[in-house]
Amino acid sequence: MRLNPTHSPKRKSWVESANVEGCEFPIQNLPFGVFRRKGTDEAPRGGVAIGDVIVDVAAFARAARLRGAARVAAQACAGPTLNPLLELGSAHWSALRQALSRALAMGETGWEQRKAKLAEFLVPMNEAELRLPVAIGDYTDFYTSVFHATNIGRMFRPDNPLMPNYKWVPIGYHGRASSVVVSGTPVARPRGQTKAPDAVAPSFGPCRRLDYEVELGFVVGSGNRLGDSIPIASALDHVFGVVLLNDWSARDIQAWEYQPLGPFLAKSFATTISPWIVTMEALEPYRVPAFKRAEGDPAPLPHLLDASDQAEGGFSIEVEMWLRSARMREAGQPAHRLSLGNYASCYWTLAQTVAHHASNGCNLRPGDLLGSGTISGPEPGSQGALIEITEGGRKPVDLPGGEARTFIEDGDEIVQRGRCARDGYATIGFGEAAGLVLPAK
Amino acid sequence: MRLNPTHSPKRKSWVESANVEGCEFPIQNLPFGVFRRKGTDEAPRGGVAIGDVIVDVAAFARAARLRGAARVAAQACAGPTLNPLLELGSAHWSALRQALSRALAMGETGWEQRKAKLAEFLVPMNEAELRLPVAIGDYTDFYTSVFHATNIGRMFRPDNPLMPNYKWVPIGYHGRASSVVVSGTPVARPRGQTKAPDAVAPSFGPCRRLDYEVELGFVVGSGNRLGDSIPIASALDHVFGVVLLNDWSARDIQAWEYQPLGPFLAKSFATTISPWIVTMEALEPYRVPAFKRAEGDPAPLPHLLDASDQAEGGFSIEVEMWLRSARMREAGQPAHRLSLGNYASCYWTLAQTVAHHASNGCNLRPGDLLGSGTISGPEPGSQGALIEITEGGRKPVDLPGGEARTFIEDGDEIVQRGRCARDGYATIGFGEAAGLVLPAK
Repeated sequence: MRLNPTHSPKRKSWVESANVEGCEFPIQNLPFGVFRRKGTDEAPRGGVAIGDVIVDVAAFARAARLRGAARVAAQACAGPTLNPLLELGSAHWSALRQALSRALAMGETGWEQRKAKLAEFLVPMNEAELRLPVAIGDYTDFYTSVFHATNIGRMFRPDNPLMPNYKWVPIGYHGRASSVVVSGTPVARPRGQTKAPDAVAPSFGPCRRLDYEVELGFVVGSGNRLGDSIPIASALDHVFGVVLLNDWSARDIQAWEYQPLGPFLAKSFATTISPWIVTMEALEPYRVPAFKRAEGDPAPLPHLLDASDQAEGGFSIEVEMWLRSARMREAGQPAHRLSLGNYASCYWTLAQTVAHHASNGCNLRPGDLLGSGTISGPEPGSQGALIEITEGGRKPVDLPGGEARTFIEDGDEIVQRGRCARDGYATIGFGEAAGLVLPAK
Repeated sequence: MRLNPTHSPKRKSWVESANVEGCEFPIQNLPFGVFRRKGTDEAPRGGVAIGDVIVDVAAFARAARLRGAARVAAQACAGPTLNPLLELGSAHWSALRQALSRALAMGETGWEQRKAKLAEFLVPMNEAELRLPVAIGDYTDFYTSVFHATNIGRMFRPDNPLMPNYKWVPIGYHGRASSVVVSGTPVARPRGQTKAPDAVAPSFGPCRRLDYEVELGFVVGSGNRLGDSIPIASALDHVFGVVLLNDWSARDIQAWEYQPLGPFLAKSFATTISPWIVTMEALEPYRVPAFKRAEGDPAPLPHLLDASDQAEGGFSIEVEMWLRSARMREAGQPAHRLSLGNYASCYWTLAQTVAHHASNGCNLRPGDLLGSGTISGPEPGSQGALIEITEGGRKPVDLPGGEARTFIEDGDEIVQRGRCARDGYATIGFGEAAGLVLPAK
């Protein structure tokens, strides 16, 4: 772990809402996003969440007289996407985050004057509209949970659940960048071709097996040139941070279309991400060893094997999915939690997926998005998709209020949440990635 | 066919090189690209090819006093990509192309004065550096040749060459946008994981079965909103034009990685396109009926079936691949043609692939690129990839000069060409999509 003063659990902020027990955005977090005030035609710009407010980064940095790399990085947040910040690289990201942490901290010399001078550059979060934080170039989705791959493989290929390549290759595929949307964007049920096993011909119509997938999304910061690879030892330096990601999936469309080139329209109608990018620096305290391979599993090939990555290349990030139906909303019932998993249960580390991705010379660019794949653990209750929880739709989930679900119904609101907790450190949250499912158009 | 005066075979240009027999860019073509003068730091900008020169569109249009939609469209060509032009839509593209055709035509009133005034806005092609013409958002690759799908399927799955979905679903998958490069960019042999069938474990190293795929690339012009579909009857209005596309493929990497989510690193190291986008308007004379399905094949589902598309939704576009080895270059030998195919042999029409792509509400954006998939016909000599020509590497191709090839070797230059010809109309060409293969880094 590479800890610095921003990780100190003792640091408090003069933004008092950040110091409240249970706050997702204490001063130890400081995630980046893009916002503007609701109902205005203000230019969208970069912000950092703390407590219940958003730091208007570029304006705040000018007023706080940030200098050097922190100042340069803050100015790169002035536009409608964070891509200019991402291009600057990890030294700049870190300088800005550390400078913001100092400027927002309570107790350091001059903090009361800073509070008086800088409070006007904080925008209440409930007055803000949050946007997609980056212009996504390419979106790649991996498949790093061996538990998910085994569960889902069993349904699509009962005789052959886990492919022979799985424990050698961090399997991934290209996803659709254009339809990545920010939390809160409604998702219309897609139409598509489906064919029941006993039907003589397929038909076209609304998806009948609509599902979610609990994932994390990793935002590429600095890229690599076409033709160059990225060594595993420096792979994490290329990653800016992490968002929640719901890879909406039309299971009936997927089953019919996916052979031989993989999922396409079953996924490309929408992918929801959370608006706040939690930086890799903020995640340092929650690093854990890479997933321990079972006896008999092969060692990763040399280009995917690094001692430091094995020792602390995992990240303990809890992810949850919640459902609230239209009837539950009408009855005033709270959302129901469908699953709780942890990214640390994934078979391949983030560094392994990045190194693999660039191992053929493929160029990653600032703003590219890498999905973890569905995060499912071995424990009951940790499965990150309805198709796993309901065993392919055969075992409905009961909801409070008497309803049951095999797959998502119109009017259901699907809300993903996430957090990192560790004894002796602050608990930090990811906000949410939420979407209300609308009937097919 | 929607013909207009730009298609008249009698029209000649005062750019005399455009009137020479065999010229790929007669006045009936007028393809769009992005260029700047070689060895300068000029800003890249939009151009139109005619004969052996490039029309510097925005400057030419000002001097020619183009008006209305043509003027607006010409100004949208002033920047480093054609995306602003694409966003304007088909009425603007057509107005500009028709106005340029008139301004460049010989014989119309005032043509000699126009020639005298406008010649300074023509840049010799051999003094220009051609760039990627658009910023590609998402790149999708289809699989529309049933002959290719059958040939390749037989090698990967001898017992099951053509999947049951093939004749119902225009199969496609997401490709990698970041590594699409313009003709002339060298391509380094990729490294990757491969596993011989009899090996106990995979290994990592340079690809040993490097291949090309002869495709066409369709550049999306105007897009659709997320959640909306595109009716097949208006699908072609969303397409700006066509480029040559070589989907470089590492067959040994592909065989090991592609299950269950499709090709990934086997393709993402490079995709080469030609610099000139031949517009859909220029292609009108070469429209032909959709591919005639065999007796017993199913009819397309209603959302993929349109009478006009069946009658003239195909395009007769010849595509060729040529190879010139290092030894052939040293010996002064010309390139050797490996194949000649025609896009009209593809099972799914362009309109069907566009309508399918958006049928789930997926949003297409200006600058998206849609690949046809490898174009292979039923005739010997029409197979668009070495893996087909050599039957999986078992039957080498002889080259003039005594060499033979199963797959691509370092130093080979791979050059794709294309053209449209029809009795009573001009013959138009696509330029080339060329790449020299370098050793693995």
